[in-house]
Amino acid sequence: MNVEELLGYAKKVGFFWPAAEIYGGASGIFDYGHLGARLKRNFEAVWLDYFVDSNDYNLIEGSTILPEKPLIASGHASRFNDILVECTKCHTYYRADVLLNDLGINVAEGANSEELGKAIRDNNVKCPKCNGQLSEPRVFNMMIAVALGPDNGEKGYLRPETAQSAYLNFFREFTLLRKKLPMGLAIIGKAYRNEISPRQGLYRMRELTQAELQIFFDPKSWNPYDEALFNRKLNVVPYMHEQQLLSPKQLMEQFSLPQFYVYHMCLIDKFYKEVLGIPAEKIRFYEKGGNDKAFYNKVHMDIEVNVESWNGFKEVGGLHYRGDYDLTSHTKGSSQDLSVDIGNGKFMPNVLELSFGVDRNIWMLIDNAYTNEEGRSVLKLQHKLAPYAVAVFPLQKDQQLIDTAKAVYESIKRKFHAFYDETASIGKRYARMDEIGTPYCITIDFDTVNKDSKDYSTVTVRDRDTREQKRVAIADLPANLLSGL
Amino acid sequence: MNVEELLGYAKKVGFFWPAAEIYGGASGIFDYGHLGARLKRNFEAVWLDYFVDSNDYNLIEGSTILPEKPLIASGHASRFNDILVECTKCHTYYRADVLLNDLGINVAEGANSEELGKAIRDNNVKCPKCNGQLSEPRVFNMMIAVALGPDNGEKGYLRPETAQSAYLNFFREFTLLRKKLPMGLAIIGKAYRNEISPRQGLYRMRELTQAELQIFFDPKSWNPYDEALFNRKLNVVPYMHEQQLLSPKQLMEQFSLPQFYVYHMCLIDKFYKEVLGIPAEKIRFYEKGGNDKAFYNKVHMDIEVNVESWNGFKEVGGLHYRGDYDLTSHTKGSSQDLSVDIGNGKFMPNVLELSFGVDRNIWMLIDNAYTNEEGRSVLKLQHKLAPYAVAVFPLQKDQQLIDTAKAVYESIKRKFHAFYDETASIGKRYARMDEIGTPYCITIDFDTVNKDSKDYSTVTVRDRDTREQKRVAIADLPANLLSGL
Repeated sequence: MNVEELLGYAKKVGFFWPAAEIYGGASGIFDYGHLGARLKRNFEAVWLDYFVDSNDYNLIEGSTILPEKPLIASGHASRFNDILVECTKCHTYYRADVLLNDLGINVAEGANSEELGKAIRDNNVKCPKCNGQLSEPRVFNMMIAVALGPDNGEKGYLRPETAQSAYLNFFREFTLLRKKLPMGLAIIGKAYRNEISPRQGLYRMRELTQAELQIFFDPKSWNPYDEALFNRKLNVVPYMHEQQLLSPKQLMEQFSLPQFYVYHMCLIDKFYKEVLGIPAEKIRFYEKGGNDKAFYNKVHMDIEVNVESWNGFKEVGGLHYRGDYDLTSHTKGSSQDLSVDIGNGKFMPNVLELSFGVDRNIWMLIDNAYTNEEGRSVLKLQHKLAPYAVAVFPLQKDQQLIDTAKAVYESIKRKFHAFYDETASIGKRYARMDEIGTPYCITIDFDTVNKDSKDYSTVTVRDRDTREQKRVAIADLPANLLSGL
Repeated sequence: MNVEELLGYAKKVGFFWPAAEIYGGASGIFDYGHLGARLKRNFEAVWLDYFVDSNDYNLIEGSTILPEKPLIASGHASRFNDILVECTKCHTYYRADVLLNDLGINVAEGANSEELGKAIRDNNVKCPKCNGQLSEPRVFNMMIAVALGPDNGEKGYLRPETAQSAYLNFFREFTLLRKKLPMGLAIIGKAYRNEISPRQGLYRMRELTQAELQIFFDPKSWNPYDEALFNRKLNVVPYMHEQQLLSPKQLMEQFSLPQFYVYHMCLIDKFYKEVLGIPAEKIRFYEKGGNDKAFYNKVHMDIEVNVESWNGFKEVGGLHYRGDYDLTSHTKGSSQDLSVDIGNGKFMPNVLELSFGVDRNIWMLIDNAYTNEEGRSVLKLQHKLAPYAVAVFPLQKDQQLIDTAKAVYESIKRKFHAFYDETASIGKRYARMDEIGTPYCITIDFDTVNKDSKDYSTVTVRDRDTREQKRVAIADLPANLLSGL
């Protein structure tokens, strides 16, 4: 599917569509329908389990509105910028780097105004809409401002990343959690960016959801290692190099990456392969350096997945070694000393950030899972991610079958998110569930209710991917569904 | 506890505190720490299970930024107002009704500028800070504006209630969900209000979380009834009446409330009593009429709980029969016909809204659960709400006990949110868990690891509320914890 097709599918079946659609839609802002909201929650639940709970880290929740001061201290007020150009004739705005890249003119992601202006002049770039002259590039801050209080005198911003809330709460949580490092604070929530040209579905959004984990640690003593985890090769594009398959040992020795960094590359690699079910060749790490690197990072890799509808590898997350940039900045900004002493003298904890764009991952998961086999659409999501875990059908509109089907549905729906349906032919009902990724369909047929049948009190359970059916006793359904049959 | 004491406790143990605390805090904006985030998630989970999943309604997710048009259509741009006065001397702003009520001067919640101005003049009210003259009251819109796009030319607002997202998505979801009524769309998410004087902890907030369910229905045919549910008496303050205990029948016959409305009063009453564990005498419904009633409501009751720290009954939610106000407004505003035909001709569905302030409920739950018995603080939360389901301790710092305790912890932590602790005396560890509401503490002692003991491979499980201890086989722990022992 291309972007338009995926958007069309997502809208048609109930995943997502532009917000305020009946008013013509909002640019770069989406709503999730009843399937999308479940898929998103399921993604967040597996993310939380895998990265946070399993590692004894903690989830917190920070506000989405932040006062101005911490965002001045963090550098976002002055440096969280895009560079835009305006057509002097039709007054359309463009993000300069995106415009150039779209025209096949290569510029680095972090190129500054001068570099972009030069590229525009050198290539004689005009407005794609009206062929008008373009303005000189100018810096544009991407944060969305809010004014609070009765006279709108309290200036603030919608947070540009959830991460800041973790840094602002670091010291209190460090104290509450008994002054131990490493300490991980995770936040799942909204972040906001005034994108100049939002587009590509859920890729460049003005309102987005992030799942971010900030790990605070002592770089002198933190060397996490796990033999099973390190026993793998990773697709990596090191800075200024070609893509290559590298072992953790090579990454540490040839590319001088710290062990804690490589450990988390492996952890993320495993998450995409084993938890989300993405094929190995579709996952890679793309290292950024020079101007491409975010201003706060010491080591910066994008987590990329090859997404058909986005025509190749696209960023779905990042692994960022932010050093002590954040806590040092907020120590200066707040005049509160955020350094710690855990037995070896005072030092400023370092931060390793695991950052994921939830919406981008949702899009990627649908892109990856969608298959069309002989006109049959099947969304092959991992079972834990599927919006409905199971559907329950009476074979026909027979009252006895309907009553039994409803009883089965009621008995399992509090444990498994379930869907009941009695309309249309059974084949059509199976097809509908295949299309939205429901792993199992339970059908109540005449044998189920026939006391003389050897199959009395059993139902058929159909597998989405193999289309095979098994007979299972109603009493054993919960246990069998839990174990994946 | 009073407000200050509850805030102090919440901060000390890890529930919540003002956002950007190290910068002096933001007014009316809070962060949730590692305990608060879990309590909030648990509240949302039981709410979702009880009101949404159990009734086959659907969860969706709407954007927090909305364009201006739908909020003009909904009436919020012109009518979602507070009335403020300013001190002409020290320029402090006050919400006029709150100022008057604080001074013991009774004014209706919905009083207009003229009424409030008259009350201020009649009572000769001056600025409480500097005794200066107060300005005439003026209308102040509580929505928080945002400007999007490169020239900030796209005007929008942070949504003042999650409800609007449900109305905007009504027609698409109605189509996706096979054109059946009643249809329920639930949203859990942030809403924003530029409160003039935010205060009372989590009561009057500028950034808040709502859990709202919008039920779309045909008022001519929807008469939900459940004998067990109707077999109760409700504490109600009918409009212009004293508080009284009324049966559903009395509410319908004497107070002319529609059956679907009374059904949901009963449903909510049951939720507070049975799911959240609030004593019957602490829950009541407070009907609003006249100017007190929100402009979109036909029947409006606040759900109130008697909260010690707030000195009496306070609103934690509302049950609002909004008629066809919302869909009619958006039909006009969007020029999209949102009326439906489900077999008896076209009509505009009506809306019943169940609205809950999540933060207020969190505060109320802590207020209600906190007890201090002989200097022993115990947070008697319902088990499903507790931040940690269980704690695991080695009795002493003995390596064999520690290893076994860690193994037990690892084996249960993916099923139950668990806490491991080996520091301090066992009594102190129990006390810490009591203080934050952990229902069970599992202790590994020397019998657990002694092959010759009759208690080999068993642990003690201590109950938070009774302080009684039971010996339970390690293998049986998950099943026993699930069943509440």
